[in-house]
Amino acid sequence: MQPRILVVGTGAVGALYAWRLQAAGGHVSCICRSNYEQVTKNGFDMRSFSFGNAIFRPDRVFASVQEATDAEPAGYHYIIVCTKALPERVSTADLIAPAMTESKTAVVLIQNGVGIEQPVAERFPQNPCVSCIAYVGVTQTAPGVIEHVLLGDLTFGPYNRDGATEQTRPADVDSIIKLMSSGGIKCSAAHHIQAMRWNKLTWNAPFGAASVLTGLHDTHTMLDNTECAKLIKEAMEEIWQAATMMFGPENFPGPGPVTSPMAQITRTRAAAAYKPSITVDYTNGSPMEVEVIFGNAVREAKKRGIPMPRLELLYLMMRIAGQRS
Amino acid sequence: MQPRILVVGTGAVGALYAWRLQAAGGHVSCICRSNYEQVTKNGFDMRSFSFGNAIFRPDRVFASVQEATDAEPAGYHYIIVCTKALPERVSTADLIAPAMTESKTAVVLIQNGVGIEQPVAERFPQNPCVSCIAYVGVTQTAPGVIEHVLLGDLTFGPYNRDGATEQTRPADVDSIIKLMSSGGIKCSAAHHIQAMRWNKLTWNAPFGAASVLTGLHDTHTMLDNTECAKLIKEAMEEIWQAATMMFGPENFPGPGPVTSPMAQITRTRAAAAYKPSITVDYTNGSPMEVEVIFGNAVREAKKRGIPMPRLELLYLMMRIAGQRS
Repeated sequence: MQPRILVVGTGAVGALYAWRLQAAGGHVSCICRSNYEQVTKNGFDMRSFSFGNAIFRPDRVFASVQEATDAEPAGYHYIIVCTKALPERVSTADLIAPAMTESKTAVVLIQNGVGIEQPVAERFPQNPCVSCIAYVGVTQTAPGVIEHVLLGDLTFGPYNRDGATEQTRPADVDSIIKLMSSGGIKCSAAHHIQAMRWNKLTWNAPFGAASVLTGLHDTHTMLDNTECAKLIKEAMEEIWQAATMMFGPENFPGPGPVTSPMAQITRTRAAAAYKPSITVDYTNGSPMEVEVIFGNAVREAKKRGIPMPRLELLYLMMRIAGQRS
Repeated sequence: MQPRILVVGTGAVGALYAWRLQAAGGHVSCICRSNYEQVTKNGFDMRSFSFGNAIFRPDRVFASVQEATDAEPAGYHYIIVCTKALPERVSTADLIAPAMTESKTAVVLIQNGVGIEQPVAERFPQNPCVSCIAYVGVTQTAPGVIEHVLLGDLTFGPYNRDGATEQTRPADVDSIIKLMSSGGIKCSAAHHIQAMRWNKLTWNAPFGAASVLTGLHDTHTMLDNTECAKLIKEAMEEIWQAATMMFGPENFPGPGPVTSPMAQITRTRAAAAYKPSITVDYTNGSPMEVEVIFGNAVREAKKRGIPMPRLELLYLMMRIAGQRS
């Protein structure tokens, strides 16, 4: 049976994976907002370094989740959430609620930050919740025009309410991995998806904050500045240590492809200069994912009595920066 | 005998205390730079909320310490240093060296920050070194025009190379206190001058950094912002705790007029909105006293194994801000 997939938030990231899911044989419906008119008329103009250039026409395009729900009485097998994670503005659970069929629809959250799954998993306890980390460079340069320039890999894991490691993966994780892989996406299953999210945070939070707060916006300019490089390194090490305490040495670094602060810095130096996505939001005056990248991490650490003074301070400064953008 | 006093750095702070020392009967020579021409011609136009308005003509005005040295073969009893403390640019010890008479001239450092005395005391081990903290609101609004709007109190203590508390005060501290008091300045002798400098740092570093880095420049705007108030409070508490570890409960808070972070915040809320002096320097593109307010504190704490992660991070960000101003 052709899986029915609803992509909520079809910006750059959503469009890329929607396209690959359709290529894999999925029946793909997309919720579009700012690019709705362009996409309904002309589809997405995809320009991918790895999949080539093409016009991608989703099977259906909707302006809202309610529209998508009304149009599909049989319900969706998957809802892929690719919106920016802004829990202080939009509740993902509220957003997808109309289209959720109990005990059937699996939610796949392809979003940044930590702690994003909890509100969704609590609201829909009978539905599978799959957490997914994207390692990808993709931008919407104009409405419906998607430039995919780097990677595309996805790491999946089931969201586990009690936080324990998954020794076995539920069928839902395997089936979405199989589907995405058929579409050409390099997929992996995380030994411990939360630990992997914190590992990504090791880069995202310090580089993002340093970029926004110091005005040295791109990765090379930051690392070439002695003080900024020190600031980044110390914040990375704080997150790394907190994650080690939080997940235990068996899960962090653990057996997976977790990369240390030093390895991340070396890799960042070796790659082309790059502005973190949160910086792009800041300079555009768009809302930044401060709560899921900083706030949730700080709150989670505090709950467990793990000190993160540097991240706390960066969180407060990023909140202030967010008020000014 | 009329004490011969040389004031090095006769900006707002230097002019105010030079004026009061002359009023107390001192023979006062001033080193002027940007205001040299104006002051040699017309003296200082003093406008003080507590001492009234007057023209203050120093006994002599010089453009350099060498000039002042050549003009006074008998030497100076006191050198009062009121320059901005920028050890990375100007060494105070080098600056005053020509005018120092061994075993005679007492140096009085009326400057911000911590650790400012050490290089002077090491260079001139035979000369008394008096450390002094000014609690004052005074500005030079135009060359030679000095507006004194708040307080003026001075706290004195001998610089003690081994860092121990002074149970007895050397004659030099008493004599400069006597002189300043004759000029109408409210003076006190600190139980432990280093502890008092760290107490002032409890305010200066967090308010200064928050003001420069968040762009919420004045004290009320900062405290009215929930996140900024939290940032300031947490940084203040970190410095307070470090000072307690550093000086021991017998000296910090100790018996003196040390004020807690909460009391300082309450007092700041109650006072008129105010921009920290480091912010004024930042917005003017002038060099900021980052090393003596942040750098020396961070280094001193690190040397003693006392963690100050927030202050370290603020130090790095202030250094970056300093490169951009």
